[in-house]
Order: sequence, then C-alpha cells, then structure tokens
Amino acid sequence: MDKVRLQKYAGLIVRSGINPSAGQPVVITAGLEQPEFTRMVVEECYKAGSGEVVVNFTDMTIDKYAQIYQNEETLSTLPAWDRARWQWMTEKFPARIWLDSDDPDGMAGIDQEKYSRTFSRKVKEIKRYRDVIENRHQWCIAAVPGEAWAVKVFPGVPASEAVEKLWEAILSASRANGDPIANWDEHNKVIHARCEKLNKYKFRQLRYKSANGTDFTVGLMAEGIFCGAAETDLSGRVFNPNIPSEEVFTTPKKGEADGLLVSTKPLSWQGTLIEDFSIRFENGKAVEVKAAKGETALRKMIAIDENAPYLGECALIGKNSPVNNSGILFYNTLFDENASCHVALGRGFDNCVENYEKYSKDELKALGVNDSVIHVDFMIGSDDLEITGVTCNGSEIKVFENGEWSI
Amino acid sequence: MDKVRLQKYAGLIVRSGINPSAGQPVVITAGLEQPEFTRMVVEECYKAGSGEVVVNFTDMTIDKYAQIYQNEETLSTLPAWDRARWQWMTEKFPARIWLDSDDPDGMAGIDQEKYSRTFSRKVKEIKRYRDVIENRHQWCIAAVPGEAWAVKVFPGVPASEAVEKLWEAILSASRANGDPIANWDEHNKVIHARCEKLNKYKFRQLRYKSANGTDFTVGLMAEGIFCGAAETDLSGRVFNPNIPSEEVFTTPKKGEADGLLVSTKPLSWQGTLIEDFSIRFENGKAVEVKAAKGETALRKMIAIDENAPYLGECALIGKNSPVNNSGILFYNTLFDENASCHVALGRGFDNCVENYEKYSKDELKALGVNDSVIHVDFMIGSDDLEITGVTCNGSEIKVFENGEWSI
Repeated sequence: MDKVRLQKYAGLIVRSGINPSAGQPVVITAGLEQPEFTRMVVEECYKAGSGEVVVNFTDMTIDKYAQIYQNEETLSTLPAWDRARWQWMTEKFPARIWLDSDDPDGMAGIDQEKYSRTFSRKVKEIKRYRDVIENRHQWCIAAVPGEAWAVKVFPGVPASEAVEKLWEAILSASRANGDPIANWDEHNKVIHARCEKLNKYKFRQLRYKSANGTDFTVGLMAEGIFCGAAETDLSGRVFNPNIPSEEVFTTPKKGEADGLLVSTKPLSWQGTLIEDFSIRFENGKAVEVKAAKGETALRKMIAIDENAPYLGECALIGKNSPVNNSGILFYNTLFDENASCHVALGRGFDNCVENYEKYSKDELKALGVNDSVIHVDFMIGSDDLEITGVTCNGSEIKVFENGEWSI
Repeated sequence: MDKVRLQKYAGLIVRSGINPSAGQPVVITAGLEQPEFTRMVVEECYKAGSGEVVVNFTDMTIDKYAQIYQNEETLSTLPAWDRARWQWMTEKFPARIWLDSDDPDGMAGIDQEKYSRTFSRKVKEIKRYRDVIENRHQWCIAAVPGEAWAVKVFPGVPASEAVEKLWEAILSASRANGDPIANWDEHNKVIHARCEKLNKYKFRQLRYKSANGTDFTVGLMAEGIFCGAAETDLSGRVFNPNIPSEEVFTTPKKGEADGLLVSTKPLSWQGTLIEDFSIRFENGKAVEVKAAKGETALRKMIAIDENAPYLGECALIGKNSPVNNSGILFYNTLFDENASCHVALGRGFDNCVENYEKYSKDELKALGVNDSVIHVDFMIGSDDLEITGVTCNGSEIKVFENGEWSI
C-alpha cells in the first residue's frame, strides 16, 4: 500500500482518533502483521505531542497456544505484571489505540468451556480497573489487514493481493482517502445532527420488524440520549473511538426487551465464528438462542456473567452506509457493525445517559444501564427493516423504513 | 527456510537452551521479524512442560523513536508496569529466551549523550532486580534473521535472499543442522574437557601479543575458573545461555590489566557500530580509547558507570571455530564473539569463581569480580595471536599460538 496514504491514515487515527494531550502517554495494542504501519502510528503520536508510547504486540496464535496448553488456574489469573499495567493506566490515563488485524477464525477449535470458565474469572479482575478508566481518557479502535483475515474476506486470490484489497477496503470504509481529517470533521457534523434530531423525540421504545422473523421491542431510558462518532471524555478531549463509525446509538433500558432478533451477518467472537443465529428476549433477557454454526460459543458468551444476556446498545445505521455499499462482508465487528443496524449484549454505555457524570455507577445501573464483562455487537439490519420509535406520549414515529432512515 | 529445520532449531533453544522445569514460566523477548519462528518456540516451551509463556515483542525502530522523541525524565525512568515485570521475575524465576534479530545500525544517528545519560539512570534501577535473578534461573540468547541485519551481512543480494542466507549461516554457526540436541551434547563434552584442562594450570596471568599492536597482560583470581557452553543454575538445572557458544572464558581480577588491546572486528553497541578501535589499560582500567568510527559511542559506553572501564571477561576461541571458518562477519556479538578471542568491559561473572554460591556479592567483589551495569564484549583474536598463561609459581605455558589453541 502506498506509503503516503498510510501516513495519512496513521495521522487520522492519532489526531482524530485519540487526539492526545501534550505529554499524555499512549498505549498501542497491535498484532504482528503490519509493523511498518504500527511504527508510523507511533511516530505520529510523538509528532502530535504525546508522552511515552508503549506498544503491546499481541499474536492470536500465541494466545491460542495459551488456551490449549496453559492450565485453568494460569488462564484465570491476571499476572502481577499485567495487573501493574492496568494499575498504571488508572493513574496515568494513557490514550489507547487498538490496531485490529485479527483472524476471524483465529481461535477456532479451542475448548469453549475452558475458555469461558477462565475468561470470565480473569475479566472480572480486569473490570475493576476498566471501570476506573471508563470515559476518563480517549481511545480508538482502527483496523489494519492481517493475512489470514484478508484471505477470509477475499478468498481465491493470492494472499498478498488479498492484503492489498483489504487495505483498500479498510481505507475506503474508514473515510481515510483524500484528506481523512477533513472527511471526519464533515462526517462528525452529519452524525451529530442526526443525534440531535433523534434526541428531540425522547423515544421510550423502539420496535423492530423484518420479514426474516425479527419482531422485537426494546425500552429506552427517559434520561437516555443517542450518541455517535466523536465523543468527549471527562477531561473535555474530543476523540473518535471507532474508525470507521457510521452508527447512531443509545443504551436501552435493562429489563425491557421482548421478542425475536434474527442475525443478518456472522459474528466473530474471540476468534470463533457464529453464523445464522437468532435470539429471543423476554423481560430484557435473552432466553433462547439458536445458531447454524458456533452455537456453543454463543451460549458460553451469554453465560459469562449474570448480565451478559441483557442488552447494552441499540445502534442504527442506514443500509446505504459506505461499509454496506462496499458489498464486503468483513467478518470483523468494527466494520460489519457499521454496515447494519445492530444491538449489543452486555455492558451499556454510561455516556448514553444525559449528564452521566452527575450520577454514581449504582445510580446509572438503577436507571437501566446494563453492566457486564462483555459487550458484543451483533447485526440485525436487513433490507426491509422497519423501526418505529414510540415517544413518551405514545405517538409512533417511523425511524427506519426498508432498512434506511425515514426521519 | 524449511519448517522442519526451524522446528529442530526451536527445539534446541528450548530443550538445550533453557531446559524449563515443569510448570516454570518462560519469558521470550523477540523482534517482529520472524513471527512464525517465535510461535514455534512458544509451542516448544509448552510441549517441554513449561508454565505460561509470555512474549515481549520489541522493535528497534520504535525504540529509536523513543530515543528521539521522549524527554530525558521519561527515558531515565523505569515505568511502574515495567518495574512490576521485573519484580515478578524476582519472585517466579521464569526461564528467559532472547531471539535476537537486531539491525546492527538500527540506532544509528541517535543522540549518544542523551542515550547514555538516560540509559545509565534507568539501568541502575533494573540492576537491583537483575542482581536478584542472576544465576537463579536458566536463560538463552539465540538469533533469527532480521531483514536489515541480513542485508548488512550479505550486501548486494535481494533482501529475501539475504534473509535465507542469514538463516543458513545462523543454523550452521549454531550447530543446529542434523540433530541439534545431539550436536550440543557432544559439543558440551569438548568444551567442558577444555575447561578442566585449563583449570588444572591455575593461571594467575594471561599475556596477549599480536603484530597488530596488541600487547597486554591481565591478572586472574586464585579462586577463578574457566567455564564454557552449558552451565548449571543454582537450582541445579543445566542450560546453554548462548547459542552458538564456542568460547572458554573466565572473569579476570579487577585492577590487574595493563597494555594495549587492538580490536579485530567491529562492535555493534546498542545499535551503533564501532569500528577499528583500540583500548589501552593501566592498573585494570581503560585509560585511552581510539576508534576510526563510533568513538563517541565507545567513550559513552565506558563512562556509563565507574566500573565500566574495568574488565569482566576474558574468552578464548581458536581461529578454527565454525563461526570464524564461515568467513562471515555477522556484526552481532553473539556470533562474532564466537569467532574470536575477546574480552568484555564491565560486569564479571560470579560463577567464574569456584563455589561462588558460598560467597556474598561483596566478597566476590573483594576477590576481584567487577560489577557494572554493562557487559560488552569486543574481539581481539587475530591470526597470529599468542597467549601465554603464567601459573602461581611463575612458569609460563603457551596457551595460544598463531590464533589457535596450543594446549
């Protein structure tokens, strides 16, 4: 891929993505697939005035070996050196970047039982630190092609060509061609205007209907707001947590979700692909799941903790989003969630409550913000999807018709 | 490179190199250049019965950016998360593997003044932990080709070909062809027999002479012994700290070194190449240095702490070693030190004192074991090198003649 284009993309991730303050440390988590690009991002951070940049390189194969060979005690425990890293983050509030290049099938074949038993124990320890960090500092997830991922998205072409094609797809879906920073300034205006419009309706319910079987109603909090694209952290720094980001989203009210949601895209969870699945909800809770492939992983995911079967997010994306128009199935949530209306099981977003910083964590929970160790999006947008908003006085507004915005 | 040959090399590094005990954690430090091989080493560790394997991936370009862009305070400080990692090592005693693929010129152009000011402060913090770990657990340094390194060693051929040639050179110099573990069992017998022979002489001095100008005498401790190849840690585990390792070495007596040593190979120190240099000693101390290239780096290195100008090692290697016979200049100490007699500035080895575990650190220092934050080898082996050993009763034994063993 052309170096100048990559440099601009690195600049987008750093300047629009995390927007580091002077001297702020940055933590980058990256795979081994694109060292040159990772180096560009590091240098961009320094040029943008950041303090020390710490890069944690990870590798899915090595993670898979850990799953296969380590005993349950080791897998369940947060090692002292890793705990210290989390502790450091709760003190220094580094900006964080993830450069995702994961193989969607990278963990296929692992013992799902062992994985979820140990993951659920370990992630509880991590959550203590994550709760302190949340909304305190900027973060950004963006993607770079990994070879296994590229070959999955573009089968039948040589690996190096698939990687190039995936670079093109990523840059295009991420609005990173031309002048990426100007693109995102413009894009943020559009998304923020849409949020404003939605927030004026003060919806208390959303009703979803599609010929694929989806027939579903979810309650929204009176204090809830729709957010999208650029956010502002508690210190006032504006950042873009997801590149790309086409969605407008809110956190639904825990306990109010009923009916059936039918998935419209596969879901890769922790390296295991889950396909053609549906979830039925009663009183906010997923009570029945079916999947043509990966049903065990799906069941284990929902059983991670007591709040994993409850929803944490409802996101709206018109079917004419650039990601969807590309016609590419990315097998990666960062992209596929921006091609399609989706909901998330698990943790909700505190900042989808207006003036959330004035509430305690317990007050936010009481309002209806779900809390779980997981937050997993799955796609429910179909070409004929109809979404109706119900306001506090009972009037019904058609929000989506035939899979596209109608307001 | 052929996968089966690499698998055998990975097996050598794990089983002969670190020889992990059941459940013992392993820490691997590796560059980004050979992810496939690093994964093989990880899996070999687990198959050999190790506990968790932690891989710290590092990158010289990212380290160089840190040198360029970070302020002195940040560079001088051991971050809390890194300190915790060291602390963890002093409690768990993991076996450690380094897979070296460094570009010999990788740090060229950095501000040497800034580097040594900050490095000397930071490394003092690390030394506290390193002193606890020393001799307590197994470790092994081995090499894998990096592209920049390969192109430096084999200029004028395409990079991918240079990498293949460097793989061949590494495997051959490391006695890793055929049955590597059997090769090393045999090789260890030869080296240990040579140590035994030398130790019977109880030399008090070594005298070096070469037509290149080397004319040098160094004192040895009465309690000193020659070691080489496989060592035994304090828990009784046998391991091979260096792959390759052709040398027989001892720690000289601090304060007894006089005369001139002329380098016979370039030295890459922290990514800066130092070439055609000589060092003059008086009463054990380097008092004058000259270098055609990299003299600043050499001066800074010697000024790191008060004991850096004193010697910590004298190593003997006949000129017919496989590394030297390859005719390849590796620009990497792990190899070049095994092609040539050398000495090291800085820290000596406690375990070159007989029954060293019975002495305190202070007692070892009093015997003459030098202590410094650095330990840097440089090569002095020439084709005509003559080394004479002087025993406690004054008899002179010719140890080397024309650059080769004569005993």
